[in-house]
Amino acid sequence: MIIKPTLILDADKCKANIAAQADKAERNGITLRPHFKTHQSVSVGRFFREAGIDKITVSSLEMAEYFAADDWNDITVAFPVNVLEYETINRLSGKITLNILVESIDSIRLLKNKLENKIGVFIKIDVGYGRTGVYYKDLAEIDELIKTIKSFDIFEFKGFLTHAGTTYSVKGDESIKTTSLKCIENLNSVMNYFNVNYPDIIASYGDTPSCSVLESFPGIDELRPGNFIFYDAMQYLSGACGFEQIALALACPVVAIHKDRNEAVIYGGAVHFSKESYLHESFGTIYGLPVEFNGKAWSKPIEGAYVSKISQEHGTITGPNEYISNLRIGDIIYIIPIHSCLTVYSFSSYTLANGEKLNKM
Amino acid sequence: MIIKPTLILDADKCKANIAAQADKAERNGITLRPHFKTHQSVSVGRFFREAGIDKITVSSLEMAEYFAADDWNDITVAFPVNVLEYETINRLSGKITLNILVESIDSIRLLKNKLENKIGVFIKIDVGYGRTGVYYKDLAEIDELIKTIKSFDIFEFKGFLTHAGTTYSVKGDESIKTTSLKCIENLNSVMNYFNVNYPDIIASYGDTPSCSVLESFPGIDELRPGNFIFYDAMQYLSGACGFEQIALALACPVVAIHKDRNEAVIYGGAVHFSKESYLHESFGTIYGLPVEFNGKAWSKPIEGAYVSKISQEHGTITGPNEYISNLRIGDIIYIIPIHSCLTVYSFSSYTLANGEKLNKM
Repeated sequence: MIIKPTLILDADKCKANIAAQADKAERNGITLRPHFKTHQSVSVGRFFREAGIDKITVSSLEMAEYFAADDWNDITVAFPVNVLEYETINRLSGKITLNILVESIDSIRLLKNKLENKIGVFIKIDVGYGRTGVYYKDLAEIDELIKTIKSFDIFEFKGFLTHAGTTYSVKGDESIKTTSLKCIENLNSVMNYFNVNYPDIIASYGDTPSCSVLESFPGIDELRPGNFIFYDAMQYLSGACGFEQIALALACPVVAIHKDRNEAVIYGGAVHFSKESYLHESFGTIYGLPVEFNGKAWSKPIEGAYVSKISQEHGTITGPNEYISNLRIGDIIYIIPIHSCLTVYSFSSYTLANGEKLNKM
Repeated sequence: MIIKPTLILDADKCKANIAAQADKAERNGITLRPHFKTHQSVSVGRFFREAGIDKITVSSLEMAEYFAADDWNDITVAFPVNVLEYETINRLSGKITLNILVESIDSIRLLKNKLENKIGVFIKIDVGYGRTGVYYKDLAEIDELIKTIKSFDIFEFKGFLTHAGTTYSVKGDESIKTTSLKCIENLNSVMNYFNVNYPDIIASYGDTPSCSVLESFPGIDELRPGNFIFYDAMQYLSGACGFEQIALALACPVVAIHKDRNEAVIYGGAVHFSKESYLHESFGTIYGLPVEFNGKAWSKPIEGAYVSKISQEHGTITGPNEYISNLRIGDIIYIIPIHSCLTVYSFSSYTLANGEKLNKM
């Protein structure tokens, strides 16, 4: 029985999302190396293993250690390497295939004498997002970085990796497709330039919007989406997924009802949802979408209802008068979060429809 | 040695903030019942005990249980009571003085047959914030609610409680003062109306901006600020505290430097800072303020530098060219978070300047 904010996982939808992405990768002859930062759970990780996945992506060395303990033996840490954590790198690279991400010669120089075992190195390429990585047009800088990497035997240069973060800020599947293809083209320009001298390197690409809307990925060897296993309100509203694909909801008790202003207050706030918001074209800034729940699964969003405000533990649901009027203190409302990855981070377990718990980091 | 994002607590500043607030309450003959949702730590709680505090506020029953286990025996849960958690209420009220918050007759009716021990009840009053509570002008509704509470012996009606949330959205200490005094006046209008029939009830008031800038609190019996023990960039920028009072910072490693655009990337993102932002008059939306750190304490903010972007684990520091140019991969940057309460939530411990760790929930 649910009595406080609870993270609900629809395992069937989650497994269907995994199967669809694994099929797409296989049809294209591409490796799927899913990003496990979204779920952070060895139990959910096993859904991937059942689907034949054996290579993964994580966003921290701590997360790499957590999954390595569950026998994941080929892990890429898709975050600019934190040179201060060389001891963790050594522990991991002593027992698994570990790939790190670099974008500067300084990182290579700081690491070279600290490392005890061979590790794979990807160069992070900025294909236009502007967060981090070497800009894809800076070929001389990339060339110098490759030469530095290859000058030390402890590093194995594996190729180029990018995160097409610009696909998160466009709306509609056609816009996502256009943006994704431009990012892929930019990564390919780097690949084509260096493939001559380094024929065995790979192009690693991935973000949920691209991987969801594209059917083929010209020139790409590896995909690293993460969010696609759960999706969320942001992915749905931006056109990257169908509502029926969303596999995660928050169950929150109603603690107050204000019919005069068509609001209900839930026990469920920033420490559960995160403060991630979405600028909705009708509702303005929203923090989640309430759904109808039949006791086993949720179906469509409740028309006109949304999470309109959020503070540490409080959330405010705004909705049509007939919806708010029918709510009672102690009811449980199921709500699709804006951003699954951040919502998941706040919880220590998932609850399935049958009440079973799956632990996470 | 700091090698990854670490929550740094300046215990001296924290204790000074506690002492100042305790002195102010004592001068006014008011009870200080600090909100422990900010620190969520029995170790930090003991700083309060040393300052003579014996009554506390929390925001969840889970937090009440955590602190009750460390011998806090008088706890108010300042969140509209979640009737589904009556078993936890019974466990707690069997051993400590527990006060809950109600704002509807429905909550009282749902609870009355579930409770095993007498509990204190405050009515939540909305003095203008509009989040939750009975509006202060709805005296007939409040009257009916009091009569319902008093009709069941299991409840002891204690008085009125409010959170003056509007003080967080004004800037400058004069504006905070004006806004606070209006909120206090609204609460007093309710107190004055009901004091005739209920002479023993108390007025519980509290939020960090009010409690920081006001020197007296006419008609108020109890103050419940929380954030004041650490403060943060939001409180500083809005005029509620001096920079020298801020007792919390995040230490984050530099993982990439982009001199061409005056940016550095840190290991420190939304899962460390939270996504709370502040609209700065010069910098636009910011997520934190880097400070100078001398090995023991931080002093002033670094001029022109701020956290400009944030994603799951990445943060971007934007700053003057001479500042960014002097950074090196592997440096640790100390950053004042926007909102301490949410930042603290992500961590399982505090680190003091001497390396000592204080555990938290």
